[in-house]
Amino acid sequence: MERVINFNAGPAALPLAALERARDELLDFAGTGMSVMEHSHRGKDYERVHDEAIALLREIAGIGDDTEVLFVQGGATQQFAQIPLNFLPDGGSADYIVHGAWGEKALSEAQAATKWSGGKVRVAATTVHDKQYTRVPAEAEIARDPQAAYLHVTSNETIHGVQFHELPKADAVPLVCDMSSDFLWRKTDFSPFSFVYAGAQKNVGPSGIVIVLAKKDFIARGRKDLPKIFQYRTVAENNSLYNTPPTFAIYLIRNVLDWIKKGGGLARIEEQNRQKAALIYGAIDANASFYVSPVEKASRSTMNVVFRLPSEELEARFLAEAKKLKMVGLKGHRSVGGIRASLYNAVSLEWTKTLVDFMRDFAKKA
Amino acid sequence: MERVINFNAGPAALPLAALERARDELLDFAGTGMSVMEHSHRGKDYERVHDEAIALLREIAGIGDDTEVLFVQGGATQQFAQIPLNFLPDGGSADYIVHGAWGEKALSEAQAATKWSGGKVRVAATTVHDKQYTRVPAEAEIARDPQAAYLHVTSNETIHGVQFHELPKADAVPLVCDMSSDFLWRKTDFSPFSFVYAGAQKNVGPSGIVIVLAKKDFIARGRKDLPKIFQYRTVAENNSLYNTPPTFAIYLIRNVLDWIKKGGGLARIEEQNRQKAALIYGAIDANASFYVSPVEKASRSTMNVVFRLPSEELEARFLAEAKKLKMVGLKGHRSVGGIRASLYNAVSLEWTKTLVDFMRDFAKKA
Repeated sequence: MERVINFNAGPAALPLAALERARDELLDFAGTGMSVMEHSHRGKDYERVHDEAIALLREIAGIGDDTEVLFVQGGATQQFAQIPLNFLPDGGSADYIVHGAWGEKALSEAQAATKWSGGKVRVAATTVHDKQYTRVPAEAEIARDPQAAYLHVTSNETIHGVQFHELPKADAVPLVCDMSSDFLWRKTDFSPFSFVYAGAQKNVGPSGIVIVLAKKDFIARGRKDLPKIFQYRTVAENNSLYNTPPTFAIYLIRNVLDWIKKGGGLARIEEQNRQKAALIYGAIDANASFYVSPVEKASRSTMNVVFRLPSEELEARFLAEAKKLKMVGLKGHRSVGGIRASLYNAVSLEWTKTLVDFMRDFAKKA
Repeated sequence: MERVINFNAGPAALPLAALERARDELLDFAGTGMSVMEHSHRGKDYERVHDEAIALLREIAGIGDDTEVLFVQGGATQQFAQIPLNFLPDGGSADYIVHGAWGEKALSEAQAATKWSGGKVRVAATTVHDKQYTRVPAEAEIARDPQAAYLHVTSNETIHGVQFHELPKADAVPLVCDMSSDFLWRKTDFSPFSFVYAGAQKNVGPSGIVIVLAKKDFIARGRKDLPKIFQYRTVAENNSLYNTPPTFAIYLIRNVLDWIKKGGGLARIEEQNRQKAALIYGAIDANASFYVSPVEKASRSTMNVVFRLPSEELEARFLAEAKKLKMVGLKGHRSVGGIRASLYNAVSLEWTKTLVDFMRDFAKKA
């Protein structure tokens, strides 16, 4: 068996150590004679893993006691609806910053949710420019509503490869952030955020689970006239065990977090992630007549590097030749085309160098 | 490694063959050089598994073209809310049959959902009797509203061990069924149902995924003023790939369905499941002064056999001695106490016989 070099945008490459651990105990978890998947979510063997995943996340990310760490289902897409259902009061208004396809979706689902909430949503800033998102909005471009129930921002737009390197300042308005594609890639001060959510399938685990970091006082503000399953307080009061969670996904998150910790924590991961991004953007800029990044330099994503070649034909050849060298997952999102290399935590520096070498050779040859 | 005998109520035992297959290809799925978890949900390798799971389900269960097979997230508990959100129109009413804890929860979440829907919910029948559910209601006890938007029923109550052996008749009112704990345990005619849902973690897979069988014309009736993620039409129109599904859970369902098919399909599984239930109830009735099933005979569950011993002390000893013989998961639900043996598809006849022998010996000794 030869593992390929996986640049998928998510679900994405997982650390080999986390997968090997899962494989080795798939039929016999911790000497219990059954798979972790076969354990009751109310039993002590599973609960140990569950609590360890939360404790590791708190430790690695420096999450304070004022904040709940929650596991929820439905993907970040469900959060797009669930957040306004909880936090947009009747007669209130929520602000959205849009700089890519995911921000658009979050806005659209929030609009639909106002049928229940009675509130309204408002675009505080957008860089839509004919759907070609090439940068994040500058702080001065954000028309904030000081009365907003919250300000929603997408920290990294996976499809357009556009990332906030400095997130909008928190003020009296609670800051809510979709961090799906750049969660836990670097040391982050989570204290300004009232609510952070991230689908696990990029930097921290498999698909089917969302991690939420939410301030306790923000959760308490959520409306109580929703079905219980949709209220974050229900999840928090039950340690994410109100109903059966995706136990295997949480187990794998535990394995990935343990791998991050043992590898030196977020400081070390950040250093490597920055090196990886610098290498690829370096290869683009060194062959600027051949590779073109549509994204403004200050907004270039460290997680999803998107670029174009002179023609779609060359892009197809690029992908085909990369595949021969065991590099997969480089095709850009179907809505925008081109090439995309996703450089999440499990993508090694070595893999990245292989891609950089290939980019240089391919540009030379073409 | 010695596998234990697992009578968990869910998450529950999985077929060894399905787990071994997962283990063997955990790092290299179908020769692709990566885990199935690391594949894009939009790539052909994953889509093949996804489509195979749906095709196997259609084949095994005999699902017609008028019915969608969907994968949704959030557990059956989320469905409790999502179903009325979709199908309870403003000014309408929905009927609920309650014969256990899950039916109660479904009713309660539907009541909360009326805040959005504007409709109301109504108890068509209940066997609550001071929370000690001991039987399903008889057909004559069901006070049907002929104008109801739907009639909701729980086919098997996992906690109370109470099962409908013949479900309420379908009439002009659409029949909606929570089949979580007795889905695919026998040959079933799904044609009377407008909507069936089942958390996978009992008979067909790991936790974190719900299977829905829904008539196309019923889905079309669902309201359109909900966030897209909550509309079943969104899931159906996108082949359950509107947003990233829990790919590994669906892969495992595929493995389990393949195991069912290769083992002789539902006819064979049903035969074995009926044997297993007959054996345990036989052991209870043969020692009727020692083991007491609180459930009326006609409503006894083939999936979750609950019984009491003369004292809680004896129950604790029963559990401890069973554990010494590698039998686990026999503790009754914390809300009702006692003993519960769950006999889902992956529980073998041999395991069941081991329990029966133990029950006989324990009663004799005590």
